[in-house]
Amino acid sequence: MTEPDTKRVKTANGAPYELIYWPGIPGRGEFVRLLFEEAGVPYNDTAKSANDAVQTVIDLVSPDNKGDEINPPTCTCPALKHGDLRLFQTPNILLYLGPQLGLAPKEGNGIYHINQLVLTILDCFCNEVHDTHHPVAAKDYYEDQKPEAKRRAKSFIEERLPKFLAYLERVLEGKASGDGPWLYGGKLTYADLVLFQGIHGTEYAFPKTMKNMRDSGKYDRVFELFEAVKERPNIKEYLASSRRCQYGNGIWRHYPELEED
Amino acid sequence: MTEPDTKRVKTANGAPYELIYWPGIPGRGEFVRLLFEEAGVPYNDTAKSANDAVQTVIDLVSPDNKGDEINPPTCTCPALKHGDLRLFQTPNILLYLGPQLGLAPKEGNGIYHINQLVLTILDCFCNEVHDTHHPVAAKDYYEDQKPEAKRRAKSFIEERLPKFLAYLERVLEGKASGDGPWLYGGKLTYADLVLFQGIHGTEYAFPKTMKNMRDSGKYDRVFELFEAVKERPNIKEYLASSRRCQYGNGIWRHYPELEED
Repeated sequence: MTEPDTKRVKTANGAPYELIYWPGIPGRGEFVRLLFEEAGVPYNDTAKSANDAVQTVIDLVSPDNKGDEINPPTCTCPALKHGDLRLFQTPNILLYLGPQLGLAPKEGNGIYHINQLVLTILDCFCNEVHDTHHPVAAKDYYEDQKPEAKRRAKSFIEERLPKFLAYLERVLEGKASGDGPWLYGGKLTYADLVLFQGIHGTEYAFPKTMKNMRDSGKYDRVFELFEAVKERPNIKEYLASSRRCQYGNGIWRHYPELEED
Repeated sequence: MTEPDTKRVKTANGAPYELIYWPGIPGRGEFVRLLFEEAGVPYNDTAKSANDAVQTVIDLVSPDNKGDEINPPTCTCPALKHGDLRLFQTPNILLYLGPQLGLAPKEGNGIYHINQLVLTILDCFCNEVHDTHHPVAAKDYYEDQKPEAKRRAKSFIEERLPKFLAYLERVLEGKASGDGPWLYGGKLTYADLVLFQGIHGTEYAFPKTMKNMRDSGKYDRVFELFEAVKERPNIKEYLASSRRCQYGNGIWRHYPELEED
């Protein structure tokens, strides 16, 4: 395993960022990657750089790992190392990085507004999408819970997804979103990047459903935001690069039967 | 409907706190209440004080409500009003309140460590417990998804709950938890209150399972923390008061068949 080039320093200022995540899938790690990519800030991505990327994750979340004097043990990945600091939980990592990378205000209460939007977007477009193919047992195979998955997907398509899309459209209509296509304060924030990835993944998993949602005209502001993020120069370059993983057996999976009548 | 005694001020300093939540159940609102109760800080609880508590929630999350110049619209309750500020998403409200109420550090990165623990505890003891009785369709009745619920509950009891309890035991064994029974930094933080409520609710929903977990001796530190929170003078007084709701048809429901073989 390659030791990352991280000095043990008391302050994280100037220390390199390192993302630890499973290799081969975009997954929750992708939300973190998009912040670095948009900001143009270098980061070490162990999924792509470590000699044994899987073992790096396993070692970090091992029952033998009890953390250290500063950091509680890591429960799950993605995880972030920054100097002496170790963080996990996707929305928590984003909360920490957002202001540092110029993707959230450094002062005032705006960060709480952005955080609540991010938690809501992750609930729908990440956690609930995952549960469409794993509704009853996270550890079992999809093939062992297909009838339940079908029922969960129906609820997702007919109730949950339209509910969340309507809410986000309402956010974009509201005054607090400010000018331009963005969710909050008239500026691109990390909430916009999270929504972009959530929609991108959900379009892979449920292409017919998402086309119907787009064509309905009910959520035009949401899809305009999606397109605006996609056209950001750094994001566009990233999406076309080999750094961007293909979807597979992660959160966003395409099982055509889940959106057929 | 009684108008809450909240002045419209630019700064929230000195403004009263108001919690908006469904009446009649502890639910996610309970996590917020425990912070105020432990800190001994007054709060207006619309579930108990509003003439029409249900309508107060419905008005707040209404599709007609697009927020205002400062605040995005509210997606779900619990919600917090503090001066001109409106927040939602339970872990976000707690993140805002923790430092203000002396239940999290005001400076440094400790807040991120506490936030990641809180997100993890809510995942297991709140979100996953909810999904044991509503695994496939949040809007449908439990009675319409009993076989799926049984299967999800089995996975929760045998895999998910022990996994999370073992993780939390590991946090308490680790050096970053400091001295005493607490999760982080040798002091009571709001993460301890969240864990207390999560276990309390889960003991109501799965009494046999939780007794087995307690009797196993594998998670002694976790249950010691639970008892230590329960004995805090303000918490003890609160639990014995009429302000503490009884469990019912909320997140934590007791369906004996879900933990029978």
